[in-house]
Amino acid sequence: MTDSPLRLGIAGLGRGFMLLLPTLAAHPGIRLVAAADPREEARRQFVADFSATAHAEVSALCADPEVEAVYIATPHQYHREHVEMAARHGKHVLVEKPMALSLADCQAMIEAMRRAGRWLMVGHSHSFDVPYLRTRALLDSQDFGAVRMISALNYTDFLYRPRRPEELDTARGGGVMFSQAAHQVDVVRLLGGSPVTSVRAATGCWDASRPTEGAYGALLTFENGAFANLTYSGYAHFDSDELCGWSGELGQPRDPREYGQARARLAQLQDAEEEARVKNARTYGAGLSLADTSLADISHNHFGFVVVSCERGDLRPTPQGIDVFLDGRRYREPLPRPRIPRREVLDELIAAVRHDRPPIHSGEWGMATMEVCLAMLESADLGRDVTLSHQVSLAQSIEYNGEVVSR
Amino acid sequence: MTDSPLRLGIAGLGRGFMLLLPTLAAHPGIRLVAAADPREEARRQFVADFSATAHAEVSALCADPEVEAVYIATPHQYHREHVEMAARHGKHVLVEKPMALSLADCQAMIEAMRRAGRWLMVGHSHSFDVPYLRTRALLDSQDFGAVRMISALNYTDFLYRPRRPEELDTARGGGVMFSQAAHQVDVVRLLGGSPVTSVRAATGCWDASRPTEGAYGALLTFENGAFANLTYSGYAHFDSDELCGWSGELGQPRDPREYGQARARLAQLQDAEEEARVKNARTYGAGLSLADTSLADISHNHFGFVVVSCERGDLRPTPQGIDVFLDGRRYREPLPRPRIPRREVLDELIAAVRHDRPPIHSGEWGMATMEVCLAMLESADLGRDVTLSHQVSLAQSIEYNGEVVSR
Repeated sequence: MTDSPLRLGIAGLGRGFMLLLPTLAAHPGIRLVAAADPREEARRQFVADFSATAHAEVSALCADPEVEAVYIATPHQYHREHVEMAARHGKHVLVEKPMALSLADCQAMIEAMRRAGRWLMVGHSHSFDVPYLRTRALLDSQDFGAVRMISALNYTDFLYRPRRPEELDTARGGGVMFSQAAHQVDVVRLLGGSPVTSVRAATGCWDASRPTEGAYGALLTFENGAFANLTYSGYAHFDSDELCGWSGELGQPRDPREYGQARARLAQLQDAEEEARVKNARTYGAGLSLADTSLADISHNHFGFVVVSCERGDLRPTPQGIDVFLDGRRYREPLPRPRIPRREVLDELIAAVRHDRPPIHSGEWGMATMEVCLAMLESADLGRDVTLSHQVSLAQSIEYNGEVVSR
Repeated sequence: MTDSPLRLGIAGLGRGFMLLLPTLAAHPGIRLVAAADPREEARRQFVADFSATAHAEVSALCADPEVEAVYIATPHQYHREHVEMAARHGKHVLVEKPMALSLADCQAMIEAMRRAGRWLMVGHSHSFDVPYLRTRALLDSQDFGAVRMISALNYTDFLYRPRRPEELDTARGGGVMFSQAAHQVDVVRLLGGSPVTSVRAATGCWDASRPTEGAYGALLTFENGAFANLTYSGYAHFDSDELCGWSGELGQPRDPREYGQARARLAQLQDAEEEARVKNARTYGAGLSLADTSLADISHNHFGFVVVSCERGDLRPTPQGIDVFLDGRRYREPLPRPRIPRREVLDELIAAVRHDRPPIHSGEWGMATMEVCLAMLESADLGRDVTLSHQVSLAQSIEYNGEVVSR
């Protein structure tokens, strides 16, 4: 409670930062001391919002002695370079998902941070959301017995939101396998609690004008015999927020009458250039600032419909609470509306840095999630199972620098 | 309209018959002229209810000159024998799902009926339900473009309803792979509309006291590139009728407050013997008759949550109507409550026998569904994909005796 606030530096003032901005600003344990972004307008806004330092280069941010930890929210393809940079300067790191675009990059990031003796975390992903963390805690209570099966599905308009060209290019980390499967797989791995052993997936590239994976179906098997079905469509017209009490992914109230807006807005744009321009016109420092964010009327984040089937009962995490189904009784364990949504990712970071509590979402954890996502792409390509070799169980995942701390 | 009613004989007055009984009795195109069952009480009840003939042996029913078509609703393992018997006597056949327990049996049934020059149909399965047939018609309208992905899930207490020992023995056709996957696969094949090429599945046997498959997850790929995720739990505490407007599988209104009744009732029974006794005490002729059935307050049948993702829109069949999602508009196409639920299976039979209209649910169709179900078992056992060789597309499925009739 008497900890000094963590002095955080932000690498990249783009969309990842915008999503976490209200949480960063409201969290009492965080002080934003510096940022780096190539856009001058973003740097100017950051200085105005936080009376803090703004660098043009990530290298300068990493060298800034005021900074204890760096939140790396630069485009996916730069994650490895920027983590290695932070490691060289002895900073702790929170790197946005997807951790990186290859397992070699993930491995290099883990090794760089291990050599530096600093904490590495991957997030925010939706597996930090309170409904899933609370479900995990209920599973650990042994009231339910072993997890046997998980079903997770999510139908969104992901592919029709304004995109820059690289967001529609799989080779550069575009499409749903990196941006969306990384969430769903992370949630399923957290709830499964056992290493994933094999992945069979099919992917869909259904729109030639947006030539990347926008949908997938996958069957994951776990070491303990459990299995999981994952379904995702980013082309969806059906919106699975309907199954989540019309609460949105980011906890925002959804109005079911506002239907099909993403496609409608996109249809008004001339070309990819105008689309990128529209996207860039609504970023931090260009139309958006701290004043545009709010935590009011925000419920828990979520990533679609999820049911966990256990030996003695089922659990359904929802933004409003955990629906608990046991022999003879069902009830909802309500979840109070969060005062600071998404704070869990920062809490986990602070606990690591200030109290040496190994995070769930370590580098090894993030790499295991990426291995599943990459295996889904490979399996869809090969038309057969892909076996995995970098998986960690929940217990193993909280090993850090050779030290194992039990949950 | 001036057709004489089809003179139908019933082989087996058990649960399959009980489920179809109100439909059989109400359908103006059907006359129940005979039945066969080894239980004298069932035969007595049939004579009382229908002023018809009752035989102790299926062979006698098949030889009965009054009978034009036989509805074979005997236990799964007798289907082949009884279909061959009907064929020898030149009867048309409607055989209950699962068609048989092996592909060799399915093949033999198809060949016997082809040699006899009589129609063979497999059903009732839930792919006859109006919501799925209507969805198929919408897909055929071309408004939606090609089917790309199907997600189907169903959470029930199937395994905890009263069972006879063979219903919990996979080798004898027990468990959800024969009784429940046969429905879900049939629905998904109908909606997919393209031959299934490969199956990857995992199955769950989670209760040692009921040692058969009670759950599965599967990924099916179709020849046209589409894929489907299937999830089923018969161990469920969560009840997916919640996602179907609390309408039950058989169209009955469900009361969400009546929770966990199957397990509670089962817990009061001493052993398997008492369980079988309880089950047998509530069958046709033993506690139940035509007077116990009703078509009042019955909505369309369904088999859980289903979403079909297409090129230009999504379709969600529900017992109340088809939820249609297109660019810029969503609406529900309401389905009027059926006057005679489940009549579609009889309509298809009558259309075949009276008007030579090849049924969708032919022997070849039923065999293709069984091949998928058996492949799911094999895939779960082997831990890899199983490729298929007896699949038919919807168009091919309506070939009969070498004649192809376009839909």
